[in-house]
Amino acid sequence: MSSLVVGSIALDTVETPFGKAEEALGGTAVFFSLAASLFTDVQLVGVVGQDFPEDAVTLLQTRGVDVEGLQRREGQTFRWIGEYDFDMNVAHTLDTRLNVFETFHPSIPERYRDARLVFLGNIDPELQLEVLRQVNQPALTCLDTMNFWISGKKAALDKVIEQVDAVLLNEGEIREYTGRYNVLEAARELRKRGPRYVIVKRGEYGAVLFADDEVFMVPAYPTWEVRDTTGAGDSFAGGFVGYLDAVGSIDASSMRSAMVYGSVVASHCVEAFSIDGLLRATPDTLEERYSRLAEITRIDASVHFNPKDLVAEGA
Amino acid sequence: MSSLVVGSIALDTVETPFGKAEEALGGTAVFFSLAASLFTDVQLVGVVGQDFPEDAVTLLQTRGVDVEGLQRREGQTFRWIGEYDFDMNVAHTLDTRLNVFETFHPSIPERYRDARLVFLGNIDPELQLEVLRQVNQPALTCLDTMNFWISGKKAALDKVIEQVDAVLLNEGEIREYTGRYNVLEAARELRKRGPRYVIVKRGEYGAVLFADDEVFMVPAYPTWEVRDTTGAGDSFAGGFVGYLDAVGSIDASSMRSAMVYGSVVASHCVEAFSIDGLLRATPDTLEERYSRLAEITRIDASVHFNPKDLVAEGA
Repeated sequence: MSSLVVGSIALDTVETPFGKAEEALGGTAVFFSLAASLFTDVQLVGVVGQDFPEDAVTLLQTRGVDVEGLQRREGQTFRWIGEYDFDMNVAHTLDTRLNVFETFHPSIPERYRDARLVFLGNIDPELQLEVLRQVNQPALTCLDTMNFWISGKKAALDKVIEQVDAVLLNEGEIREYTGRYNVLEAARELRKRGPRYVIVKRGEYGAVLFADDEVFMVPAYPTWEVRDTTGAGDSFAGGFVGYLDAVGSIDASSMRSAMVYGSVVASHCVEAFSIDGLLRATPDTLEERYSRLAEITRIDASVHFNPKDLVAEGA
Repeated sequence: MSSLVVGSIALDTVETPFGKAEEALGGTAVFFSLAASLFTDVQLVGVVGQDFPEDAVTLLQTRGVDVEGLQRREGQTFRWIGEYDFDMNVAHTLDTRLNVFETFHPSIPERYRDARLVFLGNIDPELQLEVLRQVNQPALTCLDTMNFWISGKKAALDKVIEQVDAVLLNEGEIREYTGRYNVLEAARELRKRGPRYVIVKRGEYGAVLFADDEVFMVPAYPTWEVRDTTGAGDSFAGGFVGYLDAVGSIDASSMRSAMVYGSVVASHCVEAFSIDGLLRATPDTLEERYSRLAEITRIDASVHFNPKDLVAEGA
């Protein structure tokens, strides 16, 4: 039982209407790892510079994240500087300094190669292909990407999308990639190109799973505090993959629960800056929020409305 | 058993990426009536000019809508001209000609005054107050409004909001009215000002009901065709109110089902221009879409994740 993540590790400087974080721990591999480690063992592959704080590494280890795949290189760690307005579905990037991330190539340690689940974070699709070449038939491979690769590395992206089991995208990305505006159509089109599962992330409106004949919609868990949405999508992915790994089965029913746990974990992420919200999640809060999502979406399937019956009653 | 609606009756000219309708039947009272009449008897109050097509009146009557409250005045019917981009959550108004609607005052026929449910469409809050003065203790009063009245007629709007049981608003409107960005906070604030029920409409992302201790989220029913979203909110309201009237009880459980039927009816509305989508709805399609919404949101409440159990199993 283990999940492998390959993705960015960053020091983020983020400002939102609710505060600011400077040079705070961030990046896909970090958010994903901390989220998935609530459920399972996580193996991390990424790169940092010499300036990366040692206590961040220790923190990951304390949370059960295996850092053998963490490369430390000459130079500076990847920096992202961004801000959000009240509408925190949209990040505004002020500056991106790739630094050591620019020349990153994923090298998967021997010990990681049998990982059951593999999450290919939003990196160059050529690198995502390099990862797939190094792993031994995982039970589920998941991929995230972004507009930058959709427009800039379409051929490589097509190739990796053909090979993975699940793709996670936001609405704008799946529309751009498939050329279809209607999300049902876009998901059908994407599934034709290979992946059995398509997950469309909708920010504060939750996420939708498309699988075989199934559509499943989970709302974002409604929280009183939304302070910084950086990492919410990666936390969703971490909760989703981590839960699937932990339960050991990948079927329609576990997929649904995994989506719900993804939403639950993402809700922790957004409640504070950087990783602070994720660190507050506990087995109890996960269970509590899962139950609450079940409650606030519950539709009584036994209800039937038949106007003819009502006419008969009223007659 | 009857529901009263007071609102606009319009001839809409609408262009979307999927086509165009010219001088087509529209307006709150029309969409609401046709939606609610799928469930119950509807009494309509509104105004049209001499140019209003007689066969539109006949159509409403055929659908069981009582048009005694329909005023016909010298002059032209209200016109709305608008367009939508692919993002059909946002209408772009090109022109509004109030015509006879400008001097409209609602006069509630004697026979309508005992209506069980009353829906105050998005009109001047002074007129909404005039309606409330003419009805005899309905079981439920619902109100819709818009930014124009929030900024322009705040005092009158405050007064009518104090007096109604339920308010339906979109996210931008509730944020503007309450000054709170977080929707949970905004709904709490609005409920403090009078209404027991607050329904936040989120376009293609569905709607949320806030009531007492309850939050209930229903997605928009996912449909393959979204051609024109004009009237979707009014159709939602019509399905919601019509169902509540038909079942004859207003409790937590019927409120939930009413939200689901609102979503179902709105999904019919958006599938075609003007009222054509609504006209295709049948008891069978309502039941089918209700069941499907139950299915695509179903969360297994018996799932519990306890990492300690898993560790024990794996040990």
